[in-house]
Amino acid sequence: MRKIAFCLALAIGTTYTSHVLAGKNDGKLMEQAQSQFKPIPTEPPALEGNEVTPERIELGKWLYFDPRLSKSWLISCNTCHNLALGGVDLEETSIGHGWAKGPRNAPTVLNSVFNLAQFWDGRAEDLEAQAKGPIQAGVEMNNTPDRVERTLKSIPEYVQSFRKAFPGEADPVSFNNMAKAIEAFEATLLTPGSPFDKYLKGDAGALSKAEKRGLKLFMDKGCSSCHSGVNLGGEGYYPFGVVEKPGGEVLPEEDKGRFAVTKTASDEYVFKVPSLRNIELTPPYFHSGEVWELEQAVAIMGSSQLGIDLNDNETAAIVTFLKTLTGEQPKVEYPILPPHTKGTPLPVVDVSSEAMMGH
Amino acid sequence: MRKIAFCLALAIGTTYTSHVLAGKNDGKLMEQAQSQFKPIPTEPPALEGNEVTPERIELGKWLYFDPRLSKSWLISCNTCHNLALGGVDLEETSIGHGWAKGPRNAPTVLNSVFNLAQFWDGRAEDLEAQAKGPIQAGVEMNNTPDRVERTLKSIPEYVQSFRKAFPGEADPVSFNNMAKAIEAFEATLLTPGSPFDKYLKGDAGALSKAEKRGLKLFMDKGCSSCHSGVNLGGEGYYPFGVVEKPGGEVLPEEDKGRFAVTKTASDEYVFKVPSLRNIELTPPYFHSGEVWELEQAVAIMGSSQLGIDLNDNETAAIVTFLKTLTGEQPKVEYPILPPHTKGTPLPVVDVSSEAMMGH
Repeated sequence: MRKIAFCLALAIGTTYTSHVLAGKNDGKLMEQAQSQFKPIPTEPPALEGNEVTPERIELGKWLYFDPRLSKSWLISCNTCHNLALGGVDLEETSIGHGWAKGPRNAPTVLNSVFNLAQFWDGRAEDLEAQAKGPIQAGVEMNNTPDRVERTLKSIPEYVQSFRKAFPGEADPVSFNNMAKAIEAFEATLLTPGSPFDKYLKGDAGALSKAEKRGLKLFMDKGCSSCHSGVNLGGEGYYPFGVVEKPGGEVLPEEDKGRFAVTKTASDEYVFKVPSLRNIELTPPYFHSGEVWELEQAVAIMGSSQLGIDLNDNETAAIVTFLKTLTGEQPKVEYPILPPHTKGTPLPVVDVSSEAMMGH
Repeated sequence: MRKIAFCLALAIGTTYTSHVLAGKNDGKLMEQAQSQFKPIPTEPPALEGNEVTPERIELGKWLYFDPRLSKSWLISCNTCHNLALGGVDLEETSIGHGWAKGPRNAPTVLNSVFNLAQFWDGRAEDLEAQAKGPIQAGVEMNNTPDRVERTLKSIPEYVQSFRKAFPGEADPVSFNNMAKAIEAFEATLLTPGSPFDKYLKGDAGALSKAEKRGLKLFMDKGCSSCHSGVNLGGEGYYPFGVVEKPGGEVLPEEDKGRFAVTKTASDEYVFKVPSLRNIELTPPYFHSGEVWELEQAVAIMGSSQLGIDLNDNETAAIVTFLKTLTGEQPKVEYPILPPHTKGTPLPVVDVSSEAMMGH
């Protein structure tokens, strides 16, 4: 009995000492982290020019999952931003109408409301503007605003839901309001409660020693100079290859990024800094989607953006930290969509002769 | 006051008389219907060789919604059997890997557990056997059992879920058990509570006068000689064109139906009678998916199967009845799927040169 008590005292002593020492360093690390990052809130933020009402959220959920917003009736927002898969499609670049391969990797919808703008080049100022893009893109949903409006107006339950979501409007069923409702739903797609957020909120035990080491490296090496704020990214634009351009596979020459938006020479190969929230769930990485391993993505960032060679040990530590950014994924009830009517424009799949021969 | 009482007595008298008369006819109609049809149960039936446990249902739901069962990671069971859209894709025939157009219209998954066999030609004896088909079909998910098993075994949460769903098995993560789990989930996709089911359970007021007239025509004209039982169909095989073959668009010459399964001459153009449950939600109709209007489908059935010309009034009445077959659609929480790992075979989309040129 005495022996057990002695061992216990020793054990407590050791734990106490290491806790006190760790506590000092931890406190500094936590303060440093809290000055650079913010936790994901549990409630959606207020949106400029849009009210996030329960009616808009519910209507937006219908629209988000409705493949009848596409010309083929096969592709919904959720096809490329799949809520079962971290809000992405896990493809190098997205596959759309006619099995066309799009030019860039689909960014996650999760927490995207906190980005300063949308798309890799920031060409949409918010999620409302973003929602209108893929629906019209020939290699994505390949539809037109007019056809979308005729579709929605032909379905009485949609008309009723638009009326409820946009009360008092003379013509509530519109392409613009569709985008507003989708934005309202997307604003609810948040992933709070990650280990890192618990840490940011003061729970020192929420991160392991290895994860804290990764966090320290992430800040000390300079990653957080771009990847900061609530989304650890999404707050600014930087050239891909600040120090050294990666190879043409990772940074294809023909995609000049933000230059296409601003037509300013200094914006060549400039992209929006992507969020690192839930990053372990959303490979492949970069706008080209050419990198499947987080370790490789971190190493490329080190050399191209910071001009440093991270060794394997450092890369692994940073990846260990990045995995603490995975939060609680939003749970939604899969919607039962209202049926189309005789007035609804029917799907057009544009099957090529090549594909027809396939069966 | 006396006048009002008199009017009231008259009104009550009239109502009473018509109720008694209607009651007599209603009673006969209800008895006739109850002898031919059965309501959809609220609980899944027992399955031969498969246990519908909560663990299997939950695992089956993951698998049903997981596009990583396809070669491209783009197509899940739910793509063609969309639970938001009556368990179908609303396409003439389904579009699969490489945007290939499949040969037949996708039947609904809802209540499919009550069909005597699966597929239009009945080539799968149950949903377990069915689930294995589209995953391997080149024009659908284009995968292989081996690749599916490697995929599932590479994801620890799947391994754990298979262990729980198939306790005591030495090698629980298998293509066969995947199919069993999907079958267990699909067995829960029932739509009880339709107006017609309420009527079958004795609620004479559940159907309107017009709906009852349609029901009477449906039975008297002979529709229910094939479309009977719990699914109003799904219980037998009949030639399409018992009396008169419809045109080549509706009944393409090259698709000989059940003949391909049995190689028996008498099975040429023989198909499984489809269920009429939720039929208003699942156009287009027939194995060819060439008919979008329920009225037209009913008229074709009249001439081709029964050798009668239903007039517009009769067709409309039958359609009015068919709409009472729409039940409560199953509500499911959209699953959060477990992430893949470094050992998971990555997606292969096989983008054609034609599609590449598209962007």
